[in-house]
Amino acid sequence: MELRELILKKRDGGELTRDEITYLVKGVTDGSFPDYQLSAFLMATVFRGMTEAETAALTMEMAHSGDTVDLSGLSHTVDKHSTGGVGDKTSLIVGPIAAACGCTVAKMSGRGLGHTGGTVDKLESVPGVKTEFTKEQFLKQAKEVGLIIAGQSGELAPADKKLYALRDVTGTVESLPLIVSSIMSKKLASGAESILLDVKTGSGAFMHTLEDSEALAREMVKIGRACGRRIDAVISDMSVPLGNNIGNALEVREAMDVLRGEGPDDLKELCLTLAAGMVRLSFDMTKEQAMEKTKRALEGGHAAECFSRFLVAQGAVADPMEKPDCLPNAKYQIEVKAQEDGYIQALDALTCGNVCLRLGAGRMTKTDHIDPAAGIVLCRKIGDFVRCGDTLAVIHTSREADPAWLLSAYTFSDSPAAKRKLIYKSSF
Amino acid sequence: MELRELILKKRDGGELTRDEITYLVKGVTDGSFPDYQLSAFLMATVFRGMTEAETAALTMEMAHSGDTVDLSGLSHTVDKHSTGGVGDKTSLIVGPIAAACGCTVAKMSGRGLGHTGGTVDKLESVPGVKTEFTKEQFLKQAKEVGLIIAGQSGELAPADKKLYALRDVTGTVESLPLIVSSIMSKKLASGAESILLDVKTGSGAFMHTLEDSEALAREMVKIGRACGRRIDAVISDMSVPLGNNIGNALEVREAMDVLRGEGPDDLKELCLTLAAGMVRLSFDMTKEQAMEKTKRALEGGHAAECFSRFLVAQGAVADPMEKPDCLPNAKYQIEVKAQEDGYIQALDALTCGNVCLRLGAGRMTKTDHIDPAAGIVLCRKIGDFVRCGDTLAVIHTSREADPAWLLSAYTFSDSPAAKRKLIYKSSF
Repeated sequence: MELRELILKKRDGGELTRDEITYLVKGVTDGSFPDYQLSAFLMATVFRGMTEAETAALTMEMAHSGDTVDLSGLSHTVDKHSTGGVGDKTSLIVGPIAAACGCTVAKMSGRGLGHTGGTVDKLESVPGVKTEFTKEQFLKQAKEVGLIIAGQSGELAPADKKLYALRDVTGTVESLPLIVSSIMSKKLASGAESILLDVKTGSGAFMHTLEDSEALAREMVKIGRACGRRIDAVISDMSVPLGNNIGNALEVREAMDVLRGEGPDDLKELCLTLAAGMVRLSFDMTKEQAMEKTKRALEGGHAAECFSRFLVAQGAVADPMEKPDCLPNAKYQIEVKAQEDGYIQALDALTCGNVCLRLGAGRMTKTDHIDPAAGIVLCRKIGDFVRCGDTLAVIHTSREADPAWLLSAYTFSDSPAAKRKLIYKSSF
Repeated sequence: MELRELILKKRDGGELTRDEITYLVKGVTDGSFPDYQLSAFLMATVFRGMTEAETAALTMEMAHSGDTVDLSGLSHTVDKHSTGGVGDKTSLIVGPIAAACGCTVAKMSGRGLGHTGGTVDKLESVPGVKTEFTKEQFLKQAKEVGLIIAGQSGELAPADKKLYALRDVTGTVESLPLIVSSIMSKKLASGAESILLDVKTGSGAFMHTLEDSEALAREMVKIGRACGRRIDAVISDMSVPLGNNIGNALEVREAMDVLRGEGPDDLKELCLTLAAGMVRLSFDMTKEQAMEKTKRALEGGHAAECFSRFLVAQGAVADPMEKPDCLPNAKYQIEVKAQEDGYIQALDALTCGNVCLRLGAGRMTKTDHIDPAAGIVLCRKIGDFVRCGDTLAVIHTSREADPAWLLSAYTFSDSPAAKRKLIYKSSF
């Protein structure tokens, strides 16, 4: 077998066999293939696509290309994966809810990059919280607390890591089977029995259109099932930021609000839907049973208790549910005021994410230092009528910042905006 | 400008500007682009193609990426280019004819590789003949004799050389605009005012089908004209070898036969057509005028005289037109005899080429040594009726050889084959 033959086969519309994909991933992993042949193969794949069998084989081979997390000693293991968005602190909320329902959420999470945040950065804004563990510590906390969120350790799916780095610089990111296998290989390697996907759609999401988001969700669910996992997906809106707070410590505060039964409606609704989805997969329940169980865990305060136990187990010097003042505060709070009267017609998530990046709440490059207190609190949202001079949002920052940066995210109109849909689809 | 943006533009079906193509070729030439990005660009081009403007720009930029031959001090410069075939010794015949008609044929030629031969190897089978010259020697002989054939010196179109090496290993050879720009960039750099293309079609050719060969010819002519050259193309058959002799010294002998007014009809017909095409382009004549002039040059012996002068000028120790014995002879002549009665239905050019390769008449790799005397003389051709035991061909070799190798090239039948067409099209 030769890589050149596989390039020709894919270029001419053929289907790669399982053995051919095994050969491909092995060569990617051990570095024996030249990048120039791999990138030609990737571009041919962008044009020709992959069959379900090819995508499943690629996913499984990449999942087994490095370390895998063995969660087999734990019960009802469930993972949630979001395709990334602005203000998305759902992991901090649905993790405790699902754990309070009896699931084990033993989760690997990423750091933020670009305009989207990362759960690990959010957690680390709580003084003392650690996200690095030995294998034994990881499994022990998962068993005792039912919830642990760790940064990626070891080498999960190194073949995907190498292919992704190449795709990024060769214009071959935009291919459904390559996106699906990239996400799913890491999820499979992370070991949970059940996986709930939160596929974002809209201007602040990786997939801008509902059609593309649905196709991605459908393919991921198909491949996850072909690989023997319980899996489902939710499609949720990311044209506006989720909730009101964007920025690491600010998002922890808002997550605590929801766990206390407060917080904004959109965030609460999505978290209940996601947590119910996790519980449903994990316990093989009906939608209604799962939602009832989920609501009870949240409303009865069990999820909030779990969150406290979880933070303390991960090293928090104080429980922020008890002492919210332990969270860092930014040096300046700059009010962003409306410059005209009108209804808020649109509030662009991507612009909000990029403003946060500029404030130091996120990373431009992997080695950037983060300001955990920096971010934005949105005071008025879509559909609200505002008068000139009303406060639209507050920028939390330790640097100089210009309210005009954020004003460009808003569109105003004379009549109320049509109500935006939050959840487009909740099962596949 | 960034190469990644050009990849995305091509991938998404956009048209590259002249500036973008200049940037691309500059980076290829100076080696500043990573191969993995170039191969992704090439694969996107395989799928998206190129517009005429893009192909012309790519051709011109590659033509100017290195040395160019300045023939502006010579009159009626004309070049002939064949896409390569088995037994194709036309350059040795049309060169002298065109020169005898008043053209200047100052030609760079390649060495053979794989199953196709190279004019430089054929010439070097004449004892003493050299194909390396200084610029001054090259122009002097062109002026004095009207004909010089040299091996490639300097760096003609180095950008094409680099891209071709990458295309060869990344499954991106098969793209019409890339093939066209590769051939035409070298032709433009070689400096002739007029260019006649001999595009081969059939099993022994680069393009197997008439449709593909016509498309290639049409595109090359279009791009040549867009780049300001007088250019036309002939489509000729390469399903069977051209003429009767294959192998370097054997082909020189057959070329001399044609120049003497003898030799096989197919070879003679194609050479007259090609030479007339060169003369027509060079002197802006009608087809009929050009053919008349061409025939006169051949039949009056002027072309044969020119060939002698040319060989002596290039260093031949004796004129083989006078002393054919100066050409090398192979140690063994092995007769290949028919194993059955019947009409010769087909005689596969590719198989004949590969047998010659095995005899040492050609090169498997660039550094292989060539046996100038090795080759095949075909005694019976398509349509002939043969009886079991009749001699079909003679293998000339200094190695052990098995007649069965060549027998596999023949197909026999009970009824005569339909007459094969030699020239499918002679102007575009």
